[in-house]
Amino acid sequence: MAKTNGRVRVGIINVTGYAGSELARLLHFHPEVQVTSVTGRSAAGKKLSDVFPHLWQQDLPVEAELGDVDFAFSALPHAASAEAIAPLIEAGLPVVDISADFRIHDLAEYEAWYNVKHPAPDLLEESPYGLTELNREAVREARLVANPGCYPTGALLALAPAVKAGIVGADIIVDAKSGVSGAGRSVGLAYHYAEANESVGAYGLDGHRHLPEITQELAAMWGGPQPRVTFIPHLIPMTRGILATCYADILTDRLPLNDNAKAEVMRLYEDFYCNEPFVRIAAEPPQTKYTWGNNLCLIYPTIDMRTGRFVVVSAIDNLVKGAAGQAIQNMNLMLGMPETMGLDQPAVYP
Amino acid sequence: MAKTNGRVRVGIINVTGYAGSELARLLHFHPEVQVTSVTGRSAAGKKLSDVFPHLWQQDLPVEAELGDVDFAFSALPHAASAEAIAPLIEAGLPVVDISADFRIHDLAEYEAWYNVKHPAPDLLEESPYGLTELNREAVREARLVANPGCYPTGALLALAPAVKAGIVGADIIVDAKSGVSGAGRSVGLAYHYAEANESVGAYGLDGHRHLPEITQELAAMWGGPQPRVTFIPHLIPMTRGILATCYADILTDRLPLNDNAKAEVMRLYEDFYCNEPFVRIAAEPPQTKYTWGNNLCLIYPTIDMRTGRFVVVSAIDNLVKGAAGQAIQNMNLMLGMPETMGLDQPAVYP
Amino acid sequence: MAKTNGRVRVGIINVTGYAGSELARLLHFHPEVQVTSVTGRSAAGKKLSDVFPHLWQQDLPVEAELGDVDFAFSALPHAASAEAIAPLIEAGLPVVDISADFRIHDLAEYEAWYNVKHPAPDLLEESPYGLTELNREAVREARLVANPGCYPTGALLALAPAVKAGIVGADIIVDAKSGVSGAGRSVGLAYHYAEANESVGAYGLDGHRHLPEITQELAAMWGGPQPRVTFIPHLIPMTRGILATCYADILTDRLPLNDNAKAEVMRLYEDFYCNEPFVRIAAEPPQTKYTWGNNLCLIYPTIDMRTGRFVVVSAIDNLVKGAAGQAIQNMNLMLGMPETMGLDQPAVYP
Amino acid sequence: MAKTNGRVRVGIINVTGYAGSELARLLHFHPEVQVTSVTGRSAAGKKLSDVFPHLWQQDLPVEAELGDVDFAFSALPHAASAEAIAPLIEAGLPVVDISADFRIHDLAEYEAWYNVKHPAPDLLEESPYGLTELNREAVREARLVANPGCYPTGALLALAPAVKAGIVGADIIVDAKSGVSGAGRSVGLAYHYAEANESVGAYGLDGHRHLPEITQELAAMWGGPQPRVTFIPHLIPMTRGILATCYADILTDRLPLNDNAKAEVMRLYEDFYCNEPFVRIAAEPPQTKYTWGNNLCLIYPTIDMRTGRFVVVSAIDNLVKGAAGQAIQNMNLMLGMPETMGLDQPAVYP
Repeated sequence: MAKTNGRVRVGIINVTGYAGSELARLLHFHPEVQVTSVTGRSAAGKKLSDVFPHLWQQDLPVEAELGDVDFAFSALPHAASAEAIAPLIEAGLPVVDISADFRIHDLAEYEAWYNVKHPAPDLLEESPYGLTELNREAVREARLVANPGCYPTGALLALAPAVKAGIVGADIIVDAKSGVSGAGRSVGLAYHYAEANESVGAYGLDGHRHLPEITQELAAMWGGPQPRVTFIPHLIPMTRGILATCYADILTDRLPLNDNAKAEVMRLYEDFYCNEPFVRIAAEPPQTKYTWGNNLCLIYPTIDMRTGRFVVVSAIDNLVKGAAGQAIQNMNLMLGMPETMGLDQPAVYP
Repeated sequence: MAKTNGRVRVGIINVTGYAGSELARLLHFHPEVQVTSVTGRSAAGKKLSDVFPHLWQQDLPVEAELGDVDFAFSALPHAASAEAIAPLIEAGLPVVDISADFRIHDLAEYEAWYNVKHPAPDLLEESPYGLTELNREAVREARLVANPGCYPTGALLALAPAVKAGIVGADIIVDAKSGVSGAGRSVGLAYHYAEANESVGAYGLDGHRHLPEITQELAAMWGGPQPRVTFIPHLIPMTRGILATCYADILTDRLPLNDNAKAEVMRLYEDFYCNEPFVRIAAEPPQTKYTWGNNLCLIYPTIDMRTGRFVVVSAIDNLVKGAAGQAIQNMNLMLGMPETMGLDQPAVYP
Repeated sequence: MAKTNGRVRVGIINVTGYAGSELARLLHFHPEVQVTSVTGRSAAGKKLSDVFPHLWQQDLPVEAELGDVDFAFSALPHAASAEAIAPLIEAGLPVVDISADFRIHDLAEYEAWYNVKHPAPDLLEESPYGLTELNREAVREARLVANPGCYPTGALLALAPAVKAGIVGADIIVDAKSGVSGAGRSVGLAYHYAEANESVGAYGLDGHRHLPEITQELAAMWGGPQPRVTFIPHLIPMTRGILATCYADILTDRLPLNDNAKAEVMRLYEDFYCNEPFVRIAAEPPQTKYTWGNNLCLIYPTIDMRTGRFVVVSAIDNLVKGAAGQAIQNMNLMLGMPETMGLDQPAVYP
Repeated sequence: MAKTNGRVRVGIINVTGYAGSELARLLHFHPEVQVTSVTGRSAAGKKLSDVFPHLWQQDLPVEAELGDVDFAFSALPHAASAEAIAPLIEAGLPVVDISADFRIHDLAEYEAWYNVKHPAPDLLEESPYGLTELNREAVREARLVANPGCYPTGALLALAPAVKAGIVGADIIVDAKSGVSGAGRSVGLAYHYAEANESVGAYGLDGHRHLPEITQELAAMWGGPQPRVTFIPHLIPMTRGILATCYADILTDRLPLNDNAKAEVMRLYEDFYCNEPFVRIAAEPPQTKYTWGNNLCLIYPTIDMRTGRFVVVSAIDNLVKGAAGQAIQNMNLMLGMPETMGLDQPAVYP
């Protein structure tokens, strides 16, 4: 693989959104890769540090077209992303796609939810769903990885141990709370400070596009019937962070509701993630603040003993573990580098 | 009833917390009552407008003891409230208690959840649970009303029509999101701006004190078995507002899941609350912002048709419909005044 | 004057911005007028309560054109406002204009700052600058009042007593801090929640359009030379509120810097505003929060005794005293009603 | 110097406040030092990652007493800090003190402002004021460095080029805006979320303790008379960040106010800081957000040409360049390491 100063040359397609600029921020910490080309139609011709003053070290020009690189991230919107990626894959470039284009394996379902014809359906089969902790081996082998949505990342990491262990039923509720950056950098009245601040509301009650991802991956964990998932996202007056509060019934034949039940669930989770560098089972219900800016997922599983209901709460930074951080984690695997390389930051608190 | 300038003389016990000061703010709009005595140990001797500059018109002194009034609100903490109220009731003064002391009819359950001996158990029997829309007649006759908790107000108003119509099962989840003022005016690290801002977290996972209120009142709506309620509150970085997102299964023998189901639920709710001045069925999922500072409860009921799950979202201002506003609504009934008197404010937006 | 239900019929032109909707909110409290016509191109045909759920009592339709009213407020942008107002004045309708069109008496200066040809220069002469406390008599006689800008309202009320008493020099600095609603309801990247939150910055350093208002009115207070005003506004991550911190040199021949100087300044301010219902001299530096939603201006004057510099801080709600509230205060005068009518609200706190 | 794994062993005294925990966060990025001992009375016995979940990699125990280290930071409150530091210096340990104890060279002035007897006045003479950019050589030689206050850091970096070039007069106003973390991690009603949010206010109008630092250092830049500084801090509803807006008169004999004046000031600043790694002259007025979490100071100098007044705005993160980051910058110099080592982070945006 060609290298610059001994580093892998990495490109970011559409650096001008929040996922793209977060990739540039995080890759600054990576010792083995170097961002050498960034694209973004609206800012083409400017220096990256002029578009994003927080990237003060980064004097790279924003270009209209991707330059010669060894690895690419696409942070384009759906459909545009698949269209841009297809020729790169053809040309042998490994890619992590942050858009939704390759997440949903069922073409018809993708086209129904996104209301668009898929520009590169042939690549669907070979692109693993890049929730790293659950699909590590497939990611390692892939040349194209579909980086998960932010909500599914939080929900699936929270639910996987219980679902895989078979201790919960298929009736699942995910009540998720997201900061406003999850809506992207495009303007809109709902994201105007004076509208979004000091308010909370649910949205997507008729079906949010992250639901089919959640359902697809939960179904893959089960031997049994399709899970019955209700997913309700909420917009929270904060910039970053997703808290996913998930509910399911304990199957009492698999986990008797005795005095040890809560401790057993806790142990089950600790065991499941004991070797995971970016997942921590928390002793207390987590605050999203504790993941501000880093790649961690904090999980707190418990049982509401009065009702025998399983409750698990996860916290991530939607732009890091929910987007750019996990994309880098996947890149590391695809390039044969240590999975944690460049992702070792503490969160920023307070 | 003795009057000052033709107005009923009203007292506020412990005006120095958020519920107490909100009572003073809202009562300013009331044409038939006048706040003539306010107490508050920490501020005794000062003028109310000096303690709370937003109450600029109110030069009343804060006193150590309640003066001669015709009606009293207690905004004391639990236990202290019952202790202060008992002699007032004895003396024939009608009272709305904003604390939790008279909300839970079962003495043992109260004492278990609040870990205190009840100072006035004899009054429990006669004090209706003052969720006005559901207990209007009892409130009208009472001399002591137990004003509901903020979370139960949002949750119960959201669930009542579906529960009373028998269209949902007894498995109920209430995922509630509250602004920080719900924690009161006492300081604490969790409410420090730098800690609470830009963060969201769940709390009370082992059982929040508002749960027994919710369960008690839902049980009273049912003929059948005790409902199985999981209630998880979340702290949101905003000052005011509660959003309650509630989940239950549709009983399909009572409400077939056909193309009309969502419209039928909507109609059921509109009918149930059609004469209620402070409850509005919203055409879109509500924002808490739309109730900022006023006594409204906005409710949006729907069905997740993929799973047959009932979802209902309610929005209130925790300090108004969730505390001081509802208390005044109850006072109006107790005094034989129009229920809406003094409570007709638009919300403050943006 | 024709009346509906005995009330003066009032129209709001362009109700769909923040100043327009705030007029609708505040006029709800007014016992002698009734909003009977509201216009707004983007929302024409909808009910006001559907466009703005916080105005739940208001089922008036939004219209394309103003109906038959006795009094009108224009909340249109500059230039469009003058164009819409001219025929109304012609037709004998009294108007308060919330735009900048009639604030600057010097036509050339208006056209230079606003980069537009004035659509109705003939009306400039007769339209007083409606800073009510300072121009009460002119407002009372006017058929067209130019409602002041939000920043000038805070700055001028803060500075007027010192300037009129001649105790400060002509070198004046106004460092002002405004909430985001001051930028209006139009979307823009700078007002995106994720951009505006957790940040503060100065803007308008090459000259903000509110500067000529401040300079014009300060000059009018002086006999002497043109004051030398530097005005730097800042955007603050909050929804409402303006804090203006103003600096000037004490003229020590007019106010010797002895031990009594601070008390004398305080007394000067208290005397100046002693009969003003909406201006309060605060004992402590004010928080904007204490004016949230109401028409008050809180002022704290002091002297930095180490340097002999006069410092005065004022707090207002930019949408109330800085826009809609003051407009109603002016309307009251123009209609011969008590100046405070409908404006007696406490602030909403916390 | 003894080392652990080849790294310098560093201790943090009082790690449990915001400055202390920020030191731990930032030192994580440092390749040549290792935090090996942290103290904090309230958390003694706990693991650092349990006290501060954002420091997930850091399993070090919090101790009551400092262990054996090669370098120490003190983040204790004033007086307590000097008391703890004196024996360390005595024992030959180099120390950066984040408290105010060694910032003010004049003992009487320190004792007057802080109302306490100085516990180690003998060390005052040898401890340079650690505003690195201005006192680099002295810091390099020191065994004890007084890390500047957060406000003075922003104000002095903003003013230094103009003052040293002699283009401004001695009448200086610093209007500063700080996020709430500047008040520390101790609770207090003013920092309660519900009180601090949606509000802005000035404080310290009778004299803030950071004023003598600003005056002392400005005086040192001048040959001439004591500067006449008015410093007014404001509390802003955000977590991190200080914006300092500074005003002074241009001395027109030194800088004629012609068409080139603004460009000349800009060039003067660019030249002054051209070799500084952490100071950037911004093309636009800076947002504090662009320094969130990193050690940069962004400065925008300009002239209000209408009045001939110099205006300069600086933005820093109060916890980084205003505290822990600058402390590490100073440590690097004291240890003979590259000044930027470990401090190369982009800011976290949005």
